[in-house]
Amino acid sequence: MTDPGPATRPRGRPRSNEADVAILRAARELLASDGVAGAGMEQVARRAGVSKVTVYRRWSTKEKLLAAAFESAGTGLPARTLGDQPDPPSSYDDLTYDRMTHLIDNALPTAAGLLADPQYRALLAAVFGARFTHPDLMDVFWDNHIVPRRRTALVVLERAVAEGHLPRETDVEVLLDMTVGALIYRLLQPGDLDRDVLLDYLRRVYRQAGLLPPA
Amino acid sequence: MTDPGPATRPRGRPRSNEADVAILRAARELLASDGVAGAGMEQVARRAGVSKVTVYRRWSTKEKLLAAAFESAGTGLPARTLGDQPDPPSSYDDLTYDRMTHLIDNALPTAAGLLADPQYRALLAAVFGARFTHPDLMDVFWDNHIVPRRRTALVVLERAVAEGHLPRETDVEVLLDMTVGALIYRLLQPGDLDRDVLLDYLRRVYRQAGLLPPA
Repeated sequence: MTDPGPATRPRGRPRSNEADVAILRAARELLASDGVAGAGMEQVARRAGVSKVTVYRRWSTKEKLLAAAFESAGTGLPARTLGDQPDPPSSYDDLTYDRMTHLIDNALPTAAGLLADPQYRALLAAVFGARFTHPDLMDVFWDNHIVPRRRTALVVLERAVAEGHLPRETDVEVLLDMTVGALIYRLLQPGDLDRDVLLDYLRRVYRQAGLLPPA
Repeated sequence: MTDPGPATRPRGRPRSNEADVAILRAARELLASDGVAGAGMEQVARRAGVSKVTVYRRWSTKEKLLAAAFESAGTGLPARTLGDQPDPPSSYDDLTYDRMTHLIDNALPTAAGLLADPQYRALLAAVFGARFTHPDLMDVFWDNHIVPRRRTALVVLERAVAEGHLPRETDVEVLLDMTVGALIYRLLQPGDLDRDVLLDYLRRVYRQAGLLPPA
């Protein structure tokens, strides 16, 4: 992303970063309310107040745009921060189980706030709901959003097993699916969900998974 | 759906059952291919070759029809399940952990065949994907499909804890969500999924949950 700066940028034309923010916001809103079918490049551009060319210049396909839109809804997920680091982060060499559970415990309140947001829940439903009607979106979402977090989380779980905090026979891949799966399942269940209720639930899941110490 | 009429219809073969099968099949096909928005009462009636009145006589709302359609996947009819038994089944009084794991182990191959069916996976995506765009469907699906199974499964998990096969501090509600959640998550991941791969996965999840003995 290059910013030509105030001297060369035409007056009144949003900086590209501003355009990105507007495009991603428009894509989140349309994806959450109308699903993948209603969140085309043209509709997103119109809602964001930019040209289609501006959208295509940044995201070459609708799938890449919508995956980025989902990604942009969250800055508070613990896995997001970890996933942005080298893969797996070299700092993990020093990550003991105690340190890890401390980090998780500290990250959960922010995560709960993000995940309980009705728009986040609606985006999650839209992406998973489009798994068979628009499989390309899940492919991009999986590669960009899930795989990096997954590699990082597996390092953490393997560390917990190696240190003896989880049983030696733990199936770490399955335990990861169970942890993430419970969360997705909970977010898509009927009824309202506020941050405090979800925070309590997240702590229960992480405890049951052995990733937080008993209450 | 043609009705040969009372004169030619074989004794004991009710017409309404044939219509039900045709309606449910049409609803499954439309829901899987076009999502909730494309599976209205009128479209389902047309595809099934019956009148809208025939559909409404059996299912008073679109949500009830689509929840029944999901339920009918695999058998073509609303499933006869544990949920149809007394709740919880009185036979559970005799259900030891050993007997229970034996039943689970025997049931998994059939379950894997149903769940790996691309249409089943697409129906699952459609129902969960409509959680926020058509919340009434999830409400009906939850009450009719999930809640009865959930009550039964909790009895089984509590029995396993009481017998000492799961740790005393097990959070059975969360463990149930983790088991079901992992499965939903797996079914909606990218890529093909055949029965044998899914059967292996199911066994790994049930083992990790403590509901099957170690391999």
